[in-house]
Amino acid sequence: MKISSRPASGMRDFLAPEVRRRQWVLARVTEAYRSYGFEPLETPAIERLDVLTGKYGEEGDQLMFKLLVRGDKLSAVDPADPTTMADLALHYDLTVPLARVYAEYQNSLPKFYKRYSAQPVWRADRPQKGRFREFYQCDVDYVGTESTVAELEVLGAMLDALASIRFSEVTVRINDRRILAEMLRVANVPDGASEATLATLDKLDKIGAEQVIIALSADVGLDAEAIATLQSLIPGLGPERSGEPLAHVRRALEASGGDVEPIHQLDSLIASVRRQSHDGQRVVFDPTLVRGLSYYTGPIFEFLSPHFSGSIGGGGRYDGLVGMFSGRDVPAVGGSLGLERILVIMEDKGLFPEFSPSIDVLFVQLDDDALSHVVEAAAGLRRHGFSVSIYPESTKLGKQFKYAESIGARYVAILGSREVEAGTVDIKDLKTGEQQSVSASALHSYVEKLPDV
Amino acid sequence: MKISSRPASGMRDFLAPEVRRRQWVLARVTEAYRSYGFEPLETPAIERLDVLTGKYGEEGDQLMFKLLVRGDKLSAVDPADPTTMADLALHYDLTVPLARVYAEYQNSLPKFYKRYSAQPVWRADRPQKGRFREFYQCDVDYVGTESTVAELEVLGAMLDALASIRFSEVTVRINDRRILAEMLRVANVPDGASEATLATLDKLDKIGAEQVIIALSADVGLDAEAIATLQSLIPGLGPERSGEPLAHVRRALEASGGDVEPIHQLDSLIASVRRQSHDGQRVVFDPTLVRGLSYYTGPIFEFLSPHFSGSIGGGGRYDGLVGMFSGRDVPAVGGSLGLERILVIMEDKGLFPEFSPSIDVLFVQLDDDALSHVVEAAAGLRRHGFSVSIYPESTKLGKQFKYAESIGARYVAILGSREVEAGTVDIKDLKTGEQQSVSASALHSYVEKLPDV
Repeated sequence: MKISSRPASGMRDFLAPEVRRRQWVLARVTEAYRSYGFEPLETPAIERLDVLTGKYGEEGDQLMFKLLVRGDKLSAVDPADPTTMADLALHYDLTVPLARVYAEYQNSLPKFYKRYSAQPVWRADRPQKGRFREFYQCDVDYVGTESTVAELEVLGAMLDALASIRFSEVTVRINDRRILAEMLRVANVPDGASEATLATLDKLDKIGAEQVIIALSADVGLDAEAIATLQSLIPGLGPERSGEPLAHVRRALEASGGDVEPIHQLDSLIASVRRQSHDGQRVVFDPTLVRGLSYYTGPIFEFLSPHFSGSIGGGGRYDGLVGMFSGRDVPAVGGSLGLERILVIMEDKGLFPEFSPSIDVLFVQLDDDALSHVVEAAAGLRRHGFSVSIYPESTKLGKQFKYAESIGARYVAILGSREVEAGTVDIKDLKTGEQQSVSASALHSYVEKLPDV
Repeated sequence: MKISSRPASGMRDFLAPEVRRRQWVLARVTEAYRSYGFEPLETPAIERLDVLTGKYGEEGDQLMFKLLVRGDKLSAVDPADPTTMADLALHYDLTVPLARVYAEYQNSLPKFYKRYSAQPVWRADRPQKGRFREFYQCDVDYVGTESTVAELEVLGAMLDALASIRFSEVTVRINDRRILAEMLRVANVPDGASEATLATLDKLDKIGAEQVIIALSADVGLDAEAIATLQSLIPGLGPERSGEPLAHVRRALEASGGDVEPIHQLDSLIASVRRQSHDGQRVVFDPTLVRGLSYYTGPIFEFLSPHFSGSIGGGGRYDGLVGMFSGRDVPAVGGSLGLERILVIMEDKGLFPEFSPSIDVLFVQLDDDALSHVVEAAAGLRRHGFSVSIYPESTKLGKQFKYAESIGARYVAILGSREVEAGTVDIKDLKTGEQQSVSASALHSYVEKLPDV
């Protein structure tokens, strides 16, 4: 049976042009992270199953790629007991590995551990357009302080990263889980209905105020009074739209006897983030931003691009998570950029630079006798930093020129027995068709001055 | 139960210093590969099981990390039938994925496909010192020609790569599978004994001529005549040691009526490789070099370092492998550098450069009022390309200085309310203890001139 040569479902092969684009983005993003003092961390693809299980909810446990047991354990597999089948799994995100690393090395890590990780993660989601089973995450996390300087540096690093890859028109939506909690509290939303209420408010942008109010009543089961209070608190949900959202929420929360301290803090954070942002990047308070992950405990944020309907990244403060393996609360702020989405947008909008050709000069082969001279001339050019290839076979020149074009080489070097005798190399510019005879000893200084090299 | 925070067996966490070292080596090695026109390829970690099974022998099949089936398939697991348990696996090397990629994209790839891949591979070997279950391979392959220019460029790229990471004293052992086959043929070694004979000859360096001869007779079962012919052919195995090994083998093979064409070709290849090599790098013919993998069909080679008992890389021509998915023979030459071994040697021998500190300047925090000014000053420095961090909490200065040292920051910037008023920033050099007051507007040009920045 012929074996298919396609990659496995949800997996992708990256040929040279894709690798160059991905590496360009990764290099700039990580460079921005580094400029804020975040240091690289790489954790293995494979973790013990007990490290990962139960950290991502039931769905996460099911979408995790687990590794089949090996050796003796294979004969003890019991289909009724899934725990006998797998002992390891591929990491599902980069946050749980961070928590493990922090517990393992905390004594040798700096008091404030600022790290970034740009690595693939694996999820057995149903593949569809733009959703893959292996994809990169670019995480940046600041561990060890409750100070909002952590938020500031995480957000600053992410905004700088986006600016460096030409995402100038980005909007950062910011909210705070404590403000959301305070709103639910003054509206007397029962604890059991908190999550459903937040999930419904989160949809305000998409389905509009009318539908949100219907859902809060019919689906979540809030009473009229609770809904009215929420309407008064959240601009856009009620009839009243009084100026700046943050001022509105503060006033409304104050009127309902709520704690406004988190609003003051967020106000000051937003002002500082604006101070760090680039022209065209907007930073806005959005009281309906919820973000799905239940582990957030303070400020939360999300990056939107005008070119994409979903978010291109986000994050927030999660003071309970990093300590899960060390058995104590460790304050932390983290963010993640969605590399795959960003690459799709950059491709669509033509945001990539022109990458220089991978080959500066291709030496054609005229006769076997000259090959040793070609090898030496090529080695000489490489030592001067040029990228040089030798056509491997002696065949028709036209064929060799055609190959040069196929690999993006603009210049062809011709060094046959005649040129060896004359001590020269002919350089042909395939773009202009011009050909120049150059002294072999001056070859590198000639090549250096050529356009596109 | 407390969950261990150690990485899984055979896995490693790389904290910042290790990541920097690994990235330094990878960047230089791939840069050398690129300068020969090899282009990057990245294939997914996960392949379909049918793509990988049977390509690495029985041992390979057993050491492969297979992925447990998911969803409905999980309830159909039959312990008696291993094929019901796994449908995917982690790639075991980078060569089989290359063959798959070549079959899948051959119409859009250049006539000669020169690619490199530097990626992790996974093998469920028993972990021990220096042997891991996740490790990097740095492969370079030249697909599509029978010309020895392929060998020349693969070997040149690998030698340049080693030179660029300060491996000047490297020895390249070269042999050719066709020469080995010809030696076995003229010695009348039966086909069934070929593999055992080669495996025994391969040990000459380690166990010496006497033991090899005993093994050829007692274990492999060769007759006296066959052994005598091999002794005459292989310098070091017989009593006679007449000059240069290549000349010796040629003469002996000629005397026995063997085909010496592969020897002529290898002679010329070795001369060309020497022409490309760096000072201190030796290129030698070694008629006992076998290399384990059965798929080699022509020249084979291995890199030795005086600092390490095993090889640090190797490769050869394998004309039958890349075509395995496309159903036709595709000539190819490939090599691989053992990144993990190389890193061990570099660590032992202190071959790494000093990496610049990850932080140029740490801003300390004196009072909350000045924080907005600190944020702006830090952003200004970052825009000039410096790496800058802000101490997140207002605490004793001594503590903040200590933290600066712990993260390798030599300079501390002090910007409190007093400095804000004066329009200055104080820069303290923690190495010399000197402190200088600088105009806030001239901060970046002052920092630019500081040593170690």
